[in-house]
Amino acid sequence: MKTRIYLLSFLLLAISGIQAQESLWSLTDAESPVINKDGSVTFYYADPAAESVSVSGDFLPPATIDTPSGKMEVQGSAALARDENGVWSYTTAPLAPELYAYTLTVNGVRMLDPANVYVNRDVSSLMNIFIVSRAENDKGDLYSVNDVPHGNVSKVWYDSPSLKMKRRMTVYTPAGYEDGKDYPVLYLLHGAGGDEDAWPTLGRTAQIMDNLIAAGKAVPMIVVMPNGNVNCEAAPGEWSKGMYKPTFEGSLKLDPKPLASMDESFKDIVEYVESHYKVAKDRQHRAVCGLSMGGGHSFAIANRYPGMFDYVGLFSAGLHIHEQAGFDKFYDFLKADKDIQDKLAAVFAAKPALYWIAIGNTDFLYQQNSDLRRFLDEKGYGYEYLETDGGHIWRNWRVYLTEFAQRVFK
Amino acid sequence: MKTRIYLLSFLLLAISGIQAQESLWSLTDAESPVINKDGSVTFYYADPAAESVSVSGDFLPPATIDTPSGKMEVQGSAALARDENGVWSYTTAPLAPELYAYTLTVNGVRMLDPANVYVNRDVSSLMNIFIVSRAENDKGDLYSVNDVPHGNVSKVWYDSPSLKMKRRMTVYTPAGYEDGKDYPVLYLLHGAGGDEDAWPTLGRTAQIMDNLIAAGKAVPMIVVMPNGNVNCEAAPGEWSKGMYKPTFEGSLKLDPKPLASMDESFKDIVEYVESHYKVAKDRQHRAVCGLSMGGGHSFAIANRYPGMFDYVGLFSAGLHIHEQAGFDKFYDFLKADKDIQDKLAAVFAAKPALYWIAIGNTDFLYQQNSDLRRFLDEKGYGYEYLETDGGHIWRNWRVYLTEFAQRVFK
Repeated sequence: MKTRIYLLSFLLLAISGIQAQESLWSLTDAESPVINKDGSVTFYYADPAAESVSVSGDFLPPATIDTPSGKMEVQGSAALARDENGVWSYTTAPLAPELYAYTLTVNGVRMLDPANVYVNRDVSSLMNIFIVSRAENDKGDLYSVNDVPHGNVSKVWYDSPSLKMKRRMTVYTPAGYEDGKDYPVLYLLHGAGGDEDAWPTLGRTAQIMDNLIAAGKAVPMIVVMPNGNVNCEAAPGEWSKGMYKPTFEGSLKLDPKPLASMDESFKDIVEYVESHYKVAKDRQHRAVCGLSMGGGHSFAIANRYPGMFDYVGLFSAGLHIHEQAGFDKFYDFLKADKDIQDKLAAVFAAKPALYWIAIGNTDFLYQQNSDLRRFLDEKGYGYEYLETDGGHIWRNWRVYLTEFAQRVFK
Repeated sequence: MKTRIYLLSFLLLAISGIQAQESLWSLTDAESPVINKDGSVTFYYADPAAESVSVSGDFLPPATIDTPSGKMEVQGSAALARDENGVWSYTTAPLAPELYAYTLTVNGVRMLDPANVYVNRDVSSLMNIFIVSRAENDKGDLYSVNDVPHGNVSKVWYDSPSLKMKRRMTVYTPAGYEDGKDYPVLYLLHGAGGDEDAWPTLGRTAQIMDNLIAAGKAVPMIVVMPNGNVNCEAAPGEWSKGMYKPTFEGSLKLDPKPLASMDESFKDIVEYVESHYKVAKDRQHRAVCGLSMGGGHSFAIANRYPGMFDYVGLFSAGLHIHEQAGFDKFYDFLKADKDIQDKLAAVFAAKPALYWIAIGNTDFLYQQNSDLRRFLDEKGYGYEYLETDGGHIWRNWRVYLTEFAQRVFK
């Protein structure tokens, strides 16, 4: 007890001294953003010398700009107003529960909010985030860290003989894992431009799973988030290529060329998980799902290993496309290609417990997914379908994970 | 193989469409910084409309400014020059191998480099980082992710009965952990304002350990990085207090008041580790060390559990201070306080294999650590001492970890 008081005193004495030296600089004393009780959000930026300050974010009505290839929707923005002390602020209308992202523009320069250390990376862009939560089990609440038991999140290096690489994946093990056994496994795949850090950060996987499990809405499960770029060992900066700049197509540019596809090499991941974790090794305890490219991977994995996964989830999936075909020719491809027909026949002959397709009604991959559904309908292959508002965005993928996680292993 | 080609084609077709929607925005196409072959570094900032651009960082000579309490050293800065295309740049002199941190100032506003996604958080400040590495086993090389076997890094929730909390810590397990047994454990503690994310990010713990172990310079060991703020469950944003703004003294302000000190509650951490990991449970396989407040914690932990740790490391330690005493009265305190004398007598009666003190010659805690050494010398208590240039900064703490990790468990 005495020791503790001494250490606290030490701390209070030491703050000014250490602060000056330990932090390289302290960018601001402002608190921003502030989530107000009614769900509105106030942004503050303290800079008497600034000439203009605005905020851009996905909570503002989008703007339309002209580009050489036509009109394009971009992030909406709103001006902050300056008070007599040089503190700029802007308050939104009350926002629906959600995780939102934004940046500031100060004197014409786009930047992060210096008062907000909560940042997500999406490919090469950093953006500040905040969460609006207004009631238990609303989206904001599901994406928040609540006072519930928490699972562990690990960055795990596994061996991939197919790719002749050690590779890195993120593994969520649910609270109480130490004392349990025979867990089911959800394999959760990211999109193009992403990596094994995408779902845990942008997708709020651990928070969603902690909250669903604590509420009894999902069963305790392991969630495995591998890296879907088969010529990369790990996320940018996390393997020996150094701190390269991530780009949307970046992994494709890197040497060496991959030795196998994601679906070909996926067996390495399952083998590692099933030999290193306390899991049940049968189809009833395996689910695979993913977004965009990861939806395409999930489709290909299900096709390659029919009967291996009782649950398949395609989130805004970028599906297997004929090399010369556009996005809207997928039905023609399915009708013409014997190989894919045989594969899908095998998948559905094995009677998956749930084949689940979800997409937003303005997604640029909407037609392709409609084509798949048309083909499945014609064949009488059973699946379930969720259509939401919106496009090819994380806001939808978090919802799809939330929905799918409640449907599997039950 | 066909599938793979299709997916690649899909990707290349899809890039423009997804890019516009998946990334909320793309801040820049520039590549910055660029590490040149001679170890100089060039910063680029592409903005024809900018009026002034400068870079501030710990690789530039510090500047001295006047403050109400006297002259103070601050980060040095250098102006970027604009070329005819509106691309601004600045090239440093060749830099010594090191991990460096910086920000940009554009039109008078301090901000992160929009071309660099590699960011560290120190308390409430974000800063860009880069690494200069010029030869094998130089500091830059030790801090880089190299083509060597990698350990896993996990965020682990453990039970702390002393604090009546579930708490979060970071655990590094070395490459090959699955196949080994009887590992030694290094407990590595952060400073005030820090948390369980500080050593893994600012301290480059996993990289240093991977590289030292691969070179045969350190033995494979588990490194446990707990949260030293005993009224917090976890780092800011990672527990149910929400996305609050981290501050240097932040954890002290939070309710409830802690139920025990770090040293009192430390047994919970050791008990968890020794019951959940494949470790040897004896003093020869336990080391405790930490920086600043964490050095004070290590001192207090060693004092509370004499003979429990064969290795004790104090890095720029903020030591046990008499409540009313200043930083420079520690010797007087040691001479006057029977309790601390008894504790130190017990620690050294148990003959630790290594009691190691390290500090920079301009550290504001230099006198306090000199006072401890004077007292130990007078008592004839054996210890080793490393004095480096510089102050109370991560650059030193990474060096101390590198040195200490090579001295333990041998």
